[in-house]
Amino acid sequence: MSIAEQLADAPSLQQQMQAIGDQARSASRTLAQASTESKNAALHAAAAALRAQRPAILAANAEDMVEAEGRGLSKAMLDRLLLTDERVEAMAAGVEQIAALPDPVGAVTATWERPNGLEISRVRVPLGVIGIIYESRPNVTADAGALCLKSGNAAILRGGSESFRSSAAIHAALVAGLEAAGLPAAAIQRLPTRDRAAVGIMLTMADSIDIIVPRGGRSLIERVQAESRIPVIAHLDGNCHVYVDGGADLEMARAITVNAKLRRTGICGAAETLLVDRRVADSHLAPLVGDLLAAGCEVRGDADTQAVDGRVVAASKADWDTEYLDAIIAVKVVDGVEAAIDHVARHGSQHTDCIVTDDGAAADAFLARVDSAIVLHNASTQYADGGEFGMGAEIGISTNRLHARGPVGVEQLTSYKYVVRGTGQCRP
Amino acid sequence: MSIAEQLADAPSLQQQMQAIGDQARSASRTLAQASTESKNAALHAAAAALRAQRPAILAANAEDMVEAEGRGLSKAMLDRLLLTDERVEAMAAGVEQIAALPDPVGAVTATWERPNGLEISRVRVPLGVIGIIYESRPNVTADAGALCLKSGNAAILRGGSESFRSSAAIHAALVAGLEAAGLPAAAIQRLPTRDRAAVGIMLTMADSIDIIVPRGGRSLIERVQAESRIPVIAHLDGNCHVYVDGGADLEMARAITVNAKLRRTGICGAAETLLVDRRVADSHLAPLVGDLLAAGCEVRGDADTQAVDGRVVAASKADWDTEYLDAIIAVKVVDGVEAAIDHVARHGSQHTDCIVTDDGAAADAFLARVDSAIVLHNASTQYADGGEFGMGAEIGISTNRLHARGPVGVEQLTSYKYVVRGTGQCRP
Repeated sequence: MSIAEQLADAPSLQQQMQAIGDQARSASRTLAQASTESKNAALHAAAAALRAQRPAILAANAEDMVEAEGRGLSKAMLDRLLLTDERVEAMAAGVEQIAALPDPVGAVTATWERPNGLEISRVRVPLGVIGIIYESRPNVTADAGALCLKSGNAAILRGGSESFRSSAAIHAALVAGLEAAGLPAAAIQRLPTRDRAAVGIMLTMADSIDIIVPRGGRSLIERVQAESRIPVIAHLDGNCHVYVDGGADLEMARAITVNAKLRRTGICGAAETLLVDRRVADSHLAPLVGDLLAAGCEVRGDADTQAVDGRVVAASKADWDTEYLDAIIAVKVVDGVEAAIDHVARHGSQHTDCIVTDDGAAADAFLARVDSAIVLHNASTQYADGGEFGMGAEIGISTNRLHARGPVGVEQLTSYKYVVRGTGQCRP
Repeated sequence: MSIAEQLADAPSLQQQMQAIGDQARSASRTLAQASTESKNAALHAAAAALRAQRPAILAANAEDMVEAEGRGLSKAMLDRLLLTDERVEAMAAGVEQIAALPDPVGAVTATWERPNGLEISRVRVPLGVIGIIYESRPNVTADAGALCLKSGNAAILRGGSESFRSSAAIHAALVAGLEAAGLPAAAIQRLPTRDRAAVGIMLTMADSIDIIVPRGGRSLIERVQAESRIPVIAHLDGNCHVYVDGGADLEMARAITVNAKLRRTGICGAAETLLVDRRVADSHLAPLVGDLLAAGCEVRGDADTQAVDGRVVAASKADWDTEYLDAIIAVKVVDGVEAAIDHVARHGSQHTDCIVTDDGAAADAFLARVDSAIVLHNASTQYADGGEFGMGAEIGISTNRLHARGPVGVEQLTSYKYVVRGTGQCRP
């Protein structure tokens, strides 16, 4: 066959994507009925395959690394891409942890009887087919595939082009797990192309894909939200606040502030702004700011904050709206809990916000009126995490208000149906 | 001021819409914190105002009717538009019924403690601002406004242009209720223009509106789904099935089939296709078809069904996918429950489907494997209704898989937040 003939026979990208979608839809029907045992067997077999195929995974990753270095990727990007013995083991262990979670599918979340004798129950069912679009970390391939499988959903994975070979090798282990358990290989598919046009097609496949989960930087999320014709569960901003109230214990406030800002600066639950009640500014502000500076954090403050330490730089208007994801914090003195609530309403991103206080009334006001997915009293914002919430693994933290808000674990990857049992009832 | 100066000062439609959105967002913050008592007081006052202002409402409606008749609207459309003493009273009573529902806001739906002592609870909160776009029935103004208010959401209503004056008069009564209870009038707004461009603007106001609920015909829903940059809760198709299994009691099957198809043919839960198990075709098919024909229903059947009665017309391929919303039914003989499940998977709309059988295993298979919002065993599909489910009023039935599936009552108009109470915990 000539090359021209081969090309004429080759399916177009659109056709390839349609075939992937059709296979995913078909696999999702099987998966929705799969027993907990078979799903867990597939996950355990996938974990074993990840360990057994570690040499192949590391070899594929080495090729990705060479290419990435050649393209001059940043050191941080290269570190995200790199796989090691430990990281492959962590991936396998993560898949086993997902196997150990309770199966959300089939759980009856409510049941009631009507006066006419109808028995109604609300039962968790999978969402169907989940499309996941992510950037460089290859371990997302294992995490996302395993979370979708556990929740009875078929997955279509589109990883970053830098990790193309690594993701392919990891994906092969997941497929080995599915096949070992007698589940359809198409239950977890990955796009076999780096062509960016494939993402555009994916976002329009509303008949084949029920939900899109983008994981990555702001530009990816914004592109997906703008282009998708499919509902999106996404995390956009985490501009999180710590408010130290007049009723706060100083030592607790110091510990929580440093932890919330600096334990890890790059996660969405990291605090970005510290608000301090004017009533305790004299006593609390200097030690709070001093701790942050001593730990290497840049402090951008209002006039009151600048007055307590010469190393504090002036905050600009934009600082109150900025998610630094870095060792930088904005600090402002506010007139009590009402002003703090107001500041968070105007500048926050409805992600995670915290009040430190021993005043129960102030805490109740803050918890009730701050409209964020997670509101905390006397605990660090860095607890914004599905694992810390006891949900096991998470596919991300949602800043949506619909369907899933906050950490998205296996339960949040389900929908429900109503099952109605009667004895011949007809509606009058 | 000259007319040119007045026009130069007049805000553009875009600016008017933005002002409505800003006011709704602001009102939603007040409403989210409003007590159950004040929301119910507003609803009772609105019901009283609807009754007191009945003459004005009927006068406005009479003007709408004159215009609609002049434009040659169909008799069915005119009947939808018409208000009478009884219909205004029914609207007022409906608002009072919504007042009587439990308040979903603030309900704690889960609570747990972590090993580190953090106490986590999941609490229902309003969605925020709900935009409702509907067609001719003016009573939707009262229903939708009241449901949003009860669930703590601000509402932006856009009614059909035919019912413009009627909706304005009904809206005035709702605002009177809000004001009597000391709640912001902007909690329920309606667009003060018939300009269709306003809908287009509304669908892009993602900063001001959290969710769009379209209520109306297919063309409205499809336009909204195509254009909206805001998540949509919508009901698209209700291609509902009754499957009469080999284990079905004939008398029950006859009663359910006639009720499911003909009690009301225009509602989304009306059955559109009857599937009969070949094992009982000899005994059951003729009486089932005879009942339908005797009741004035057109029957479109496959060859087996045509063979039992000369009045049965041949079903075309398209019939299996058609939502008639009329006294027409498609009838097919299938090879048992597996074939029925397969037919529903290929042709159904995942809305509401029913099996009639005394065979528990067949019922369990159907209930588990038919992937519809509502699956029924031995009960009519016409029970697909929030009121019949005991939810009180509903804003519609969702064919989405995300967030709300099936009847959408006040609970489904809420989101949730996580409230975390600690004693100084910092994340290790």
